[in-house]
Amino acid sequence: MTSTQDGEPQVERIAATGVDRLGAFSDGVFAIAITLLVLPLTEAEIGDGDVGAALAALLPRMLTFALSFAVIGRYWVLHHGALSRMARVDGRLLALNLVFLFCVVFLPFPTSLLGEHGDSTPAVALYAGNLIVAASTSTLLWAYAVRHDLTVSAERSSTALRAKVVNGLAAVVAFVPSLPLAFVSPTWAKVSWLLLIPLSALAGRLFPTRD
Amino acid sequence: MTSTQDGEPQVERIAATGVDRLGAFSDGVFAIAITLLVLPLTEAEIGDGDVGAALAALLPRMLTFALSFAVIGRYWVLHHGALSRMARVDGRLLALNLVFLFCVVFLPFPTSLLGEHGDSTPAVALYAGNLIVAASTSTLLWAYAVRHDLTVSAERSSTALRAKVVNGLAAVVAFVPSLPLAFVSPTWAKVSWLLLIPLSALAGRLFPTRD
Amino acid sequence: MTSTQDGEPQVERIAATGVDRLGAFSDGVFAIAITLLVLPLTEAEIGDGDVGAALAALLPRMLTFALSFAVIGRYWVLHHGALSRMARVDGRLLALNLVFLFCVVFLPFPTSLLGEHGDSTPAVALYAGNLIVAASTSTLLWAYAVRHDLTVSAERSSTALRAKVVNGLAAVVAFVPSLPLAFVSPTWAKVSWLLLIPLSALAGRLFPTRD
Amino acid sequence: MTSTQDGEPQVERIAATGVDRLGAFSDGVFAIAITLLVLPLTEAEIGDGDVGAALAALLPRMLTFALSFAVIGRYWVLHHGALSRMARVDGRLLALNLVFLFCVVFLPFPTSLLGEHGDSTPAVALYAGNLIVAASTSTLLWAYAVRHDLTVSAERSSTALRAKVVNGLAAVVAFVPSLPLAFVSPTWAKVSWLLLIPLSALAGRLFPTRD
Repeated sequence: MTSTQDGEPQVERIAATGVDRLGAFSDGVFAIAITLLVLPLTEAEIGDGDVGAALAALLPRMLTFALSFAVIGRYWVLHHGALSRMARVDGRLLALNLVFLFCVVFLPFPTSLLGEHGDSTPAVALYAGNLIVAASTSTLLWAYAVRHDLTVSAERSSTALRAKVVNGLAAVVAFVPSLPLAFVSPTWAKVSWLLLIPLSALAGRLFPTRD
Repeated sequence: MTSTQDGEPQVERIAATGVDRLGAFSDGVFAIAITLLVLPLTEAEIGDGDVGAALAALLPRMLTFALSFAVIGRYWVLHHGALSRMARVDGRLLALNLVFLFCVVFLPFPTSLLGEHGDSTPAVALYAGNLIVAASTSTLLWAYAVRHDLTVSAERSSTALRAKVVNGLAAVVAFVPSLPLAFVSPTWAKVSWLLLIPLSALAGRLFPTRD
Repeated sequence: MTSTQDGEPQVERIAATGVDRLGAFSDGVFAIAITLLVLPLTEAEIGDGDVGAALAALLPRMLTFALSFAVIGRYWVLHHGALSRMARVDGRLLALNLVFLFCVVFLPFPTSLLGEHGDSTPAVALYAGNLIVAASTSTLLWAYAVRHDLTVSAERSSTALRAKVVNGLAAVVAFVPSLPLAFVSPTWAKVSWLLLIPLSALAGRLFPTRD
Repeated sequence: MTSTQDGEPQVERIAATGVDRLGAFSDGVFAIAITLLVLPLTEAEIGDGDVGAALAALLPRMLTFALSFAVIGRYWVLHHGALSRMARVDGRLLALNLVFLFCVVFLPFPTSLLGEHGDSTPAVALYAGNLIVAASTSTLLWAYAVRHDLTVSAERSSTALRAKVVNGLAAVVAFVPSLPLAFVSPTWAKVSWLLLIPLSALAGRLFPTRD
């Protein structure tokens, strides 16, 4: 597209395409995972009797649907902001991104489990575990991008990505306590997830980001 | 890609990418939600007996499938037109868009419910409620873009987006009466959805749009 | 992105985005519809007994899966070639495209029906009917683009799109006989679909296309 | 977009769009197929009894889910790298790509079968067979691109694609022995898949690739 003399005009184009296709594939996975969350609802058996009562019984599933929608949506916004700061990708970043997407794709399973068995220790622990691995991988992903200089313009972008790293660590810290707590009281473990709100606010205060 | 002297060449590129990825992610969600609508049909149990009679019994489900396909398709066209007028996105617009997409992703559930229990008050009310929230959020979304000056070229585009805002309000006004009506007569509530046709025509007459 | 003096630089960009997002959304729908075809297979109940025999019993479903995969894949290639010839879209084309995509999204239902009830008249008729409406809408779509001058460069592209119109008509002509035939013999109706091969070859001979 | 005098400015643009839409459609199919893999997990019936024991019983399904996720993810990385080297596509490449995507779309079925019936000869053989056909088609795809000169810049890119061809052959060679082995011992057949690791490393050593 651009005419150069040194015979290496493709390198930049290939790199750009790399970021774009990484974004496109990730967007696809985010979009599908977020949409599949509704399936446990559409597939719930609702008899011909009292439809209103059946809907009320589905309320816990609707709430976990909304929770996981918010989680995946939030990660999409983060991913979207971080990718717009990146100039190129390498094989290791693709691999890390796949591990992260694995967590996103897996999430509908703990979601469906938590919607049906919200008071069960393994359901709460699996959900929390999934979110911890997702937050750790996401943190690792952007830390890797900063360290290996894959960002658009060194200073400003790596500051923005550093903010994402701290934000990701806040999510890890917020969910870790719920893992042992789930074995004591699944309900309190779920309540402890609210730790995310003050910790995110704190991370955002210390390392402000704008996008 | 473009060489500038002031060291801030990336801002415009990042903004453009923001609109593009917002479009790509939304397209993905629209495309998947619209396609998942068919699942209650493919998963319907059809015995080895009279296949024709079984198909006839599925007619209400096919009609709600077609209705929801039209709803999501219409919103996709609206979204597509509005986004082509936008120059950049900010965090709040992303959040509003996620709330809107939540309504789109949720729709297969009321659709499947309405297909099976078309005469039930909660099914009709849930479907109407979903559409009202979707139309309100969509209206808010484009109103926000106009007010915060996120459009491509101020005058012409904000006129186009204003037309979308009015169009969205027409949809809200058309569906609201069906919510109380559903408790009196689910059938008449569904008939009242036809109000959308004259109200949309009126909105289109008062605030014409071309795309 | 490009600096112009007349203040109307966005028009062309908006048009290009229109074609691109139409392509992206359609690609999404094609991709999902083609992938959902596998669900009746993954959801088939396979007991712990003779897995080989259970697989053999699923053979008709695998064949209809492959048939519908070929149909959607073929339409994707057609759509992809046609869209690359188009310079802009208008509201009516978007609407026609949605009707066409409706047929694509609906196809998993007749596919699943035909896989389970291959000898049933309604199953064969519904499948043939779906393909006839899809082929007619696709034909109409590209005929509309040619007539309303939405193509990239008038002469060469409209020739290419005209070839697609003729190709689409061949598909309509090939499937119509199977509709009445299904009421006499579902098996012969399915055999008559092979008419598509000589008719496509004939259309390709008369109106050659290259992409 | 670019103004030329010879009236043929579109050719390059059309070609670029061809590669881009091929990538977009393939990305969509990869993204959906990889996400559908979770459905056998979300749809597993988990009673109100011992949730932990039920989860433990699902472990084989989780492992096949992870295996197929890695397979599709790996193919996406390969496809992504190969496509970034290509300058244009032709009809035959599109057809080959569709056959390859057929294997990707089909994979959730053997995955679900293997997850439930991991000790069954037909399940192991079907899974291995699917991977062999996928690897062969992928190899054929990039060999075709090299032979028909569809790459970006002849020398460097065709070297990169040749590396992918060799890599693909390694996958074919690694999975072929498991096909007859499955009839002797399904367990040993699955163990023999580990052959892929040394063979891939060998291929990577002989024909290094960087992306």
